[in-house]
Amino acid sequence: MSDMAFRVTQSPEGTAARRGVLTTPHGIVNTPAFMSVGTKATVKTMAPDELRACGAEIVLANTYHLFLRPGHELIAAAGGLHGFMAWDGPVLTDSGGFQVFSLAASRKLTEEGAEFRSAIDGAKLMLSPEKATEVQNALGADIIMMFDECAPHPSDRSYVADSMERTLRWAERCIAAHTREDQQLFGIVQGGMYEDLRQMSAERTVALDFPGYAIGGLGVGEEKPLLYDMVAHTAPLLPADRPRYLMGIGTPEDILHAVRCGVDMFDCVLPTRNARHGFLWTSTGPVRIRNAQYREDLTPLDAACDCSTCTRFTRAYLRHLYVEQEVLAARLLTNHNLHFYLHMMLGVRDALSVGDAAALSSPAEALFLRGIATKEKGRP
Amino acid sequence: MSDMAFRVTQSPEGTAARRGVLTTPHGIVNTPAFMSVGTKATVKTMAPDELRACGAEIVLANTYHLFLRPGHELIAAAGGLHGFMAWDGPVLTDSGGFQVFSLAASRKLTEEGAEFRSAIDGAKLMLSPEKATEVQNALGADIIMMFDECAPHPSDRSYVADSMERTLRWAERCIAAHTREDQQLFGIVQGGMYEDLRQMSAERTVALDFPGYAIGGLGVGEEKPLLYDMVAHTAPLLPADRPRYLMGIGTPEDILHAVRCGVDMFDCVLPTRNARHGFLWTSTGPVRIRNAQYREDLTPLDAACDCSTCTRFTRAYLRHLYVEQEVLAARLLTNHNLHFYLHMMLGVRDALSVGDAAALSSPAEALFLRGIATKEKGRP
Repeated sequence: MSDMAFRVTQSPEGTAARRGVLTTPHGIVNTPAFMSVGTKATVKTMAPDELRACGAEIVLANTYHLFLRPGHELIAAAGGLHGFMAWDGPVLTDSGGFQVFSLAASRKLTEEGAEFRSAIDGAKLMLSPEKATEVQNALGADIIMMFDECAPHPSDRSYVADSMERTLRWAERCIAAHTREDQQLFGIVQGGMYEDLRQMSAERTVALDFPGYAIGGLGVGEEKPLLYDMVAHTAPLLPADRPRYLMGIGTPEDILHAVRCGVDMFDCVLPTRNARHGFLWTSTGPVRIRNAQYREDLTPLDAACDCSTCTRFTRAYLRHLYVEQEVLAARLLTNHNLHFYLHMMLGVRDALSVGDAAALSSPAEALFLRGIATKEKGRP
Repeated sequence: MSDMAFRVTQSPEGTAARRGVLTTPHGIVNTPAFMSVGTKATVKTMAPDELRACGAEIVLANTYHLFLRPGHELIAAAGGLHGFMAWDGPVLTDSGGFQVFSLAASRKLTEEGAEFRSAIDGAKLMLSPEKATEVQNALGADIIMMFDECAPHPSDRSYVADSMERTLRWAERCIAAHTREDQQLFGIVQGGMYEDLRQMSAERTVALDFPGYAIGGLGVGEEKPLLYDMVAHTAPLLPADRPRYLMGIGTPEDILHAVRCGVDMFDCVLPTRNARHGFLWTSTGPVRIRNAQYREDLTPLDAACDCSTCTRFTRAYLRHLYVEQEVLAARLLTNHNLHFYLHMMLGVRDALSVGDAAALSSPAEALFLRGIATKEKGRP
């Protein structure tokens, strides 16, 4: 584990937030980090060099989708995800648990694992702690996740407690099944929206001594204040010397909240999915590019942004491409949103480096440190 | 016209093919040239810098589509097509004639022009020699095309003769309507599949002294031998000191045939459209990437090709992306096909520079000169 250590480098007074460095066989990840989601071994619309240019240091891929098609054996033969998708930086795979349990109607949960039918050909498939670990060992990511159950919300306390116990048993089976020294296997804390179950889950998961810990089971339909409370409650239960990963969250504001709670790693489909739906984050607020007000707007999407979309194209052109459903629209808008997220994280890390905790209060404050928001807008 | 002259630089013995240089306000175009089709002010899936990297020197945009949406006024306000689409090289626009006449059921043809209903909002619109020229003046391309009628195939001789006469009258009206000294207005030869009408159309169009001439009305459903005959018949009727442009043609083999007949400029949607349908040209023959034989094929799409698709990704990965309908598939495959076409044209120009007319006999022969086909395959 020595070559994959996590090190907290700065932890300013007055905030639980910390800056760190996660070392993997494919390079380091500066934290707090946002991981771009490459579900099917491609961050939708983006080429690997463009991800780098946006500031990406690590990408995430989804075990469930890749297990179904094209299959982990092929990806292993191609040199793992790194070789297959020609991304030579760090990769994290989820375990498939979240996706399987989202198929509520068509899967069957047992102590063994989850049986489900392939959405592609109807074949009966099983993901279990052992299978999910085997598949992830084959996919070859630098960080892999234990197979857990993500309880729906709302759920009875007794259901969540049983589910949490099963997830803890599965955690031990994942550790036993994991075979590759060059992959870090992270544990996942569950416990639904119950603070005592979260605490029990955290304590007993930490007792298994994973090199990193995720907070799972959030962003499943709960109200925002509840999400924020659960993050604030759970993050400090995790050891300070291991990376903390909040799965599947969220908006820029959600991420900043979690950073302030001491979370180090994030992933979310919002920047890429919203871009494809014409919703853009900018330093001066959201832009829905389809709106008629941008029809003749010959200014950049975000005048303060130095991404390859904003430095080359106008809102009028982006709107035209979007209205015409041109592929270039999805590309250019995705590029901008990822740049926004990744440069907000750069600003967060800058803020932690210089001990400027106030810059963690809003996206514009964080971006201001990168020169991607004006003083007027960024420091009202 | 002095800054937009066409100059034939090499014209080897034993072939009508010639190498030339077309000078425009946005740079030179080396001929024979293939123009990538950017119908809606975007070469589908491609960013401008990627077109350059593929070897593109000029792109084509479609007046009909841009007239309908977003409108030529907006594009003029954005600095013309060059500013709007952020392509600083030469641009050519067609006149919209071909698209309007393809709407056979819903347009009405008069001496004035063509009335049609907008496919977007049903509005009644008119394109005429004057309107098409005005719109193209606003779009601001370096080369614009006269408004012509493209007769369907098959058509009676009398219909084609009448249509040709009207197109000749329209040619004079386009010249009268054209207002910009920095745009070259090209004439178009019609005459259907009738050699004598082609000859009459060529002679009378040439008498109007355009700076360049297109061969229109081909690729409209005729058999390949007839297309080839009509190109061979018409090209030599056009003046040797002006560029000759074969509109909307074709496959690599079609283009090489026309090059051998003395044609200088080409455009076609085949490389981009076929790429999106998973059909790729390679130095060793066509590849339909969806085919199961490529599922586990960890070799490049074209081992001899140095495009950014072939140097980074495997057939197995491209097939995966294609099967999953990922945007990156359309991008990477389009990139390869355009690189194939544009590097074939580079090979053609190399062949003409060194007087190697034999290298014009097949795509592999032309690519061999660029190192993009092996000696074994390229020179069987």
